[in-house]
Amino acid sequence: MITLTDIQQAAAGIAGHVPVTACAHARTLSEITGAELWLKFENLQFTASFKDRGACWKLARLDAEARRRGVIAMSAGNHAQGVAYHARRLGIPATIVMPRNTPFVKVKHTERHGARVLLEGRTLEEAAAFAAEVAAREQLAFVHPYDDPDIIAGQGTVALEMLAAAPGLDCLLVPVGGGGLVSGMAVAARALQPDIEIVGVEAALYPAMKSALDGVGRASGGDTLAEGIAVSAPGRHTLALMREHVREILLVDEVQLERAVSLLLNVEKTVVEGAGAAGLAALLQYPDRFRGRRVGTVLSGGNMDPRLLAAILTRDMVREGRITRLRIIISDVPGQVARIAAVVARLEGNFLDLQHQRIFTPLPARDSYLDITLETRDGGHLEEVLRELRAAGYAVHVLEQ
Amino acid sequence: MITLTDIQQAAAGIAGHVPVTACAHARTLSEITGAELWLKFENLQFTASFKDRGACWKLARLDAEARRRGVIAMSAGNHAQGVAYHARRLGIPATIVMPRNTPFVKVKHTERHGARVLLEGRTLEEAAAFAAEVAAREQLAFVHPYDDPDIIAGQGTVALEMLAAAPGLDCLLVPVGGGGLVSGMAVAARALQPDIEIVGVEAALYPAMKSALDGVGRASGGDTLAEGIAVSAPGRHTLALMREHVREILLVDEVQLERAVSLLLNVEKTVVEGAGAAGLAALLQYPDRFRGRRVGTVLSGGNMDPRLLAAILTRDMVREGRITRLRIIISDVPGQVARIAAVVARLEGNFLDLQHQRIFTPLPARDSYLDITLETRDGGHLEEVLRELRAAGYAVHVLEQ
Repeated sequence: MITLTDIQQAAAGIAGHVPVTACAHARTLSEITGAELWLKFENLQFTASFKDRGACWKLARLDAEARRRGVIAMSAGNHAQGVAYHARRLGIPATIVMPRNTPFVKVKHTERHGARVLLEGRTLEEAAAFAAEVAAREQLAFVHPYDDPDIIAGQGTVALEMLAAAPGLDCLLVPVGGGGLVSGMAVAARALQPDIEIVGVEAALYPAMKSALDGVGRASGGDTLAEGIAVSAPGRHTLALMREHVREILLVDEVQLERAVSLLLNVEKTVVEGAGAAGLAALLQYPDRFRGRRVGTVLSGGNMDPRLLAAILTRDMVREGRITRLRIIISDVPGQVARIAAVVARLEGNFLDLQHQRIFTPLPARDSYLDITLETRDGGHLEEVLRELRAAGYAVHVLEQ
Repeated sequence: MITLTDIQQAAAGIAGHVPVTACAHARTLSEITGAELWLKFENLQFTASFKDRGACWKLARLDAEARRRGVIAMSAGNHAQGVAYHARRLGIPATIVMPRNTPFVKVKHTERHGARVLLEGRTLEEAAAFAAEVAAREQLAFVHPYDDPDIIAGQGTVALEMLAAAPGLDCLLVPVGGGGLVSGMAVAARALQPDIEIVGVEAALYPAMKSALDGVGRASGGDTLAEGIAVSAPGRHTLALMREHVREILLVDEVQLERAVSLLLNVEKTVVEGAGAAGLAALLQYPDRFRGRRVGTVLSGGNMDPRLLAAILTRDMVREGRITRLRIIISDVPGQVARIAAVVARLEGNFLDLQHQRIFTPLPARDSYLDITLETRDGGHLEEVLRELRAAGYAVHVLEQ
């Protein structure tokens, strides 16, 4: 089994090659969640996730012959970049297998670190099978993303740094995919501070580890913002360590993951991917569980899809009343749009879209709908625009999403 | 005049109240720009800008009587939050005047720090005049955003921290609005290291300081991403210090400001507002000017409008070939959309929008345009979709923006 000594040895081994990231008290988020919250910024690692740690340590432990032959990994995500980057640094040839439909930007990021990327398989499972085949054929060392003692020891070094930076933490709240990060951190933290509580967090759509721990079958699958922890089966090593050290696994909903990513962006000014925001999401979803306690959570990765980030920002604006869809009933005669536009212009509202619906309405033939997507400064400004439009004699409905 | 001693005294005075932010080497951005780049993360101050420094020091220097009566400032931006936050911390009543059309979120952020917010005036100038009136009537100390020796000394402390964290910098590249930050930093840096070069950066749309320095009149105005440095006239104190210490002011275009914000988000995982990204924008616009040199720049603020951030992310995706508008000529008979959709579905493209244009086309009456907004994984995937649609017999045009 893995012990504190293994993790301390890993910490010494990666020192100078993997930076000690900031671990800072989050004042505003503490006020919002009711806990005394500390954040560990693993999204600021060079390849933007904690995966650098395990990859660095695993590669450092290979013997000269294995290094010469090279390594292989299967990942479409952060593990791929971590392995590719540290392999190049150590002069080890690296092969990364990714599913065929992996976005080019992820392929490019991995190739930029000098790795050979093989695109094969329609799914992660097919890609993994292909990687095993290449590993056997070319005698490459397979670097598992989590179910490997050296990987687990490497990830566990996060806990050493957190306990040093934020003494007296009551609880560590850690995102769980395959379980490498949480199990390594649990071994380290509980050895140093036996009364510390370790709580794992999974996306409710992918509760594989919780199901394995409590023996209750749960459905798994769907589109999650936390794709980095959307794992369908825990590892053998990680599951054993979880059983020993982890008190509980909380499941978080998509809406809380989205809120957590948004808060980290708006309050902490930091980009965190869905999986990396799972700890904060758990604080938002279960505030009573953590109120008044000193909680540390790992912002485990920062490789957020720009499209999802743009969608989250836009949805925030809808919630804040900055973007609204209005439906106005108008007589279908010239001059109506001009009158409405004049009201909106006077109040400094901004049209984002404007459509006339003449055909598909239940209205008398002489009336029609004018559908407007309107930008306002805030909810109060929106109310002002609505009031003035109604005062001008128009029936205005705010359309729901 | 202001000296190094004043700035060192300010540093001692704000210690413990304004955190020493990180100053880190940016490896990937150094590769991209060709300079050896160091970033100072002032966007991670508590109110998300360097304005905390000047506000903290200015308020600390007030005598007991002035503190009792209270302070007033005019700002719709970062200065408002800096003054409000430190005033509350010191138990000083604070009044902030903002123009009437200030978004509620900015009002709320300032009120959250306990300040009295007065919304008055249609423009910044009108708001400033009102603030002067209230200051006189209520005997409140006016806290100027930049043209005040204590404010300048406070902002100058950024340079002390940068020179300590990144020894041997050849050049400091600093965003310039009213000039408080750059002139304070210039005094400190040149006293400690006389050969260091100080280069200011203004948005090309707002070149007030450059015009004042070189006596060349330039037009000023327009919508800039860098609203935090969109200042129409430099300060009297700051202009004098600039004349003495600042070698040059570079003007940056909107497209480089946008690229800089995007790179900081995607590479550094950090949220920087347009003004705060001006230094990086200058490196992108004038790479030869800085190639191979050790350059430090200040990410001066992080209060980025979410709507602008979402727009930048979306435009990036268009550039990367992830979102594209296509126009396809089809016969206006049943089954055409189904055929096209089948091709796109088979290749795993994603429709974001789909419109039939029957009326406003130069085509024969039996033909029409099908306009599609298409999401693809990357440029290569887009090419694949285009190739297959054309192979199926369709004339497909990629629409420009």
